[in-house]
Amino acid sequence: MEKMELYILGCGSALPTTRHNPSAQVLNVRDKLFMIDCGEGTQQQMRKAKLKFSRLGHIFISHLHGDHCFGLFGLISTFILLGRTADLHIHAPAGLEELMTPMLRFFCGQMTYQVCFHPFDTRCPSVIYEDRSLTVTTIPLRHRMPCCGFLFAEKPGLYHIRRDMVDFYQVPVYELNRIKQGQDYVTPEGEVIPYTRLTTPAEPSRSYAYCSDTMPLESVVQQVQGVDLLYHEATFADEESVRAGETLHSTASQAADIARRAGVGQLIIGHYSARYEDETPLLEQAKAIFEPVQLAQEGLMVEIKPSSPSGVQTSDE
Amino acid sequence: MEKMELYILGCGSALPTTRHNPSAQVLNVRDKLFMIDCGEGTQQQMRKAKLKFSRLGHIFISHLHGDHCFGLFGLISTFILLGRTADLHIHAPAGLEELMTPMLRFFCGQMTYQVCFHPFDTRCPSVIYEDRSLTVTTIPLRHRMPCCGFLFAEKPGLYHIRRDMVDFYQVPVYELNRIKQGQDYVTPEGEVIPYTRLTTPAEPSRSYAYCSDTMPLESVVQQVQGVDLLYHEATFADEESVRAGETLHSTASQAADIARRAGVGQLIIGHYSARYEDETPLLEQAKAIFEPVQLAQEGLMVEIKPSSPSGVQTSDE
Repeated sequence: MEKMELYILGCGSALPTTRHNPSAQVLNVRDKLFMIDCGEGTQQQMRKAKLKFSRLGHIFISHLHGDHCFGLFGLISTFILLGRTADLHIHAPAGLEELMTPMLRFFCGQMTYQVCFHPFDTRCPSVIYEDRSLTVTTIPLRHRMPCCGFLFAEKPGLYHIRRDMVDFYQVPVYELNRIKQGQDYVTPEGEVIPYTRLTTPAEPSRSYAYCSDTMPLESVVQQVQGVDLLYHEATFADEESVRAGETLHSTASQAADIARRAGVGQLIIGHYSARYEDETPLLEQAKAIFEPVQLAQEGLMVEIKPSSPSGVQTSDE
Repeated sequence: MEKMELYILGCGSALPTTRHNPSAQVLNVRDKLFMIDCGEGTQQQMRKAKLKFSRLGHIFISHLHGDHCFGLFGLISTFILLGRTADLHIHAPAGLEELMTPMLRFFCGQMTYQVCFHPFDTRCPSVIYEDRSLTVTTIPLRHRMPCCGFLFAEKPGLYHIRRDMVDFYQVPVYELNRIKQGQDYVTPEGEVIPYTRLTTPAEPSRSYAYCSDTMPLESVVQQVQGVDLLYHEATFADEESVRAGETLHSTASQAADIARRAGVGQLIIGHYSARYEDETPLLEQAKAIFEPVQLAQEGLMVEIKPSSPSGVQTSDE
């Protein structure tokens, strides 16, 4: 199965602590790196995780609070020093380009590459990135400013050709691509051979959803239905639910409840308030509602695995 | 003796490594904190060093390269979250205020305190800070953009009154302050009693000089003459002296040579190029020229001690 790994580079909230960095993650999909949020110190965290700068092409910023984007300046500067030439794409709510341009002009005088800003509308889900194997869709969130999470979904994989069967039916080579995509084969005599007889199942498609910062939302439950891995902010323990409500954040139980109702495969909680010396109580509160949950932690790498056998085919073999 | 301690928060150069943070230091003078440069991640480094944010009033920025000032945004934001009310003074070469103002306006909407920018001329030494016990003077440096180091000098201390002698001469109480400052006492009969007979020596005044980033300069040798502690950048080992010359940086030997010729008490070298996995060779090269030298290291705290008994008085006792 192709690589799909999530690296937690920072899972604290706005106030710095000695235990956590501000928000940043990297999703490695088949050795393409996608960054999600970029708090202060992210470039150093990437080094620590041994993630290659040159493999990073796209950065997704959830919202324009400093703890989610102050690491961009250092990262962009460093790429110049390293002589980067490939474009760097930054997807963010409107406003970032205007804020960053004077800074980049001053501090990064001689750009060796281009920074391309792609503002997105935070009010409705939209596909903001697509390549051969992956789409990234915004997940509208509700916070103290325009904010979106991101849903990374692998496209359905190709069915695997059964050598023995295509030989048996003497399928011509030029038909194979269509069959891999799930189309039946029609022999010169007009007989329909279902693709299920000619192939074995595709690898199941995997998906990852990132939701931070936000109050708990019914629309998120709908949109992240059945994802294999959900990162949901749990800034506060349940005891601080009033404070969570006031600041438009979520508690550990609320995050777990979203995961349970969305039927996700696994949950990771993070974006901890600086008040917690130890997040075990948050884990316990979440676990009481949704069992497959773990605490985000700097340096944590999670392999994203299909939570249920999707891409199932009914085979008549 | 009153506290005077230097904390190294970051001593790497522009490229991030897992071993070093970008430039930042804090000088603690009698529990007032003075920050020197503020690279990305400095607020977290302050936490690790257990330095209190509330004791920081003045920040001195040597020059406007990102690795010396990208930590300001996070630091200023954090102070708002903590409800700071005291002014924060930032001393820097001209241009920083213009660059930071739009960012602060956006990211730090509701300021709870004032950030006061104090631009300084980088071409000639000038006193940019003064309080009862300390002055800070710029040290013009030569780098790829306007740049200054900083000389922190304690003001001369007061002489200590000898109880036995002022009793013997029946010196009135209102004369004591003048005598502490080094003035002689004249008895009602007109006899001059030298202050040296009435006092013991003052605590020697201490001084610290920060010089980064710069090529080696004769003017620095003159200006840091006899300081108790000198931090001088040594971005490169001697083998890279050509590269050092091209980028207007210094080698380890050049830094040591400055220290030797200026007759400083102690030298710390830092601002290491990312190419060095281990800076021991830089230390060895410096040591061959100037013995009391050590390598800067994140987390290092150096107590600044008088290197030679200054404030010496010739006593006839």
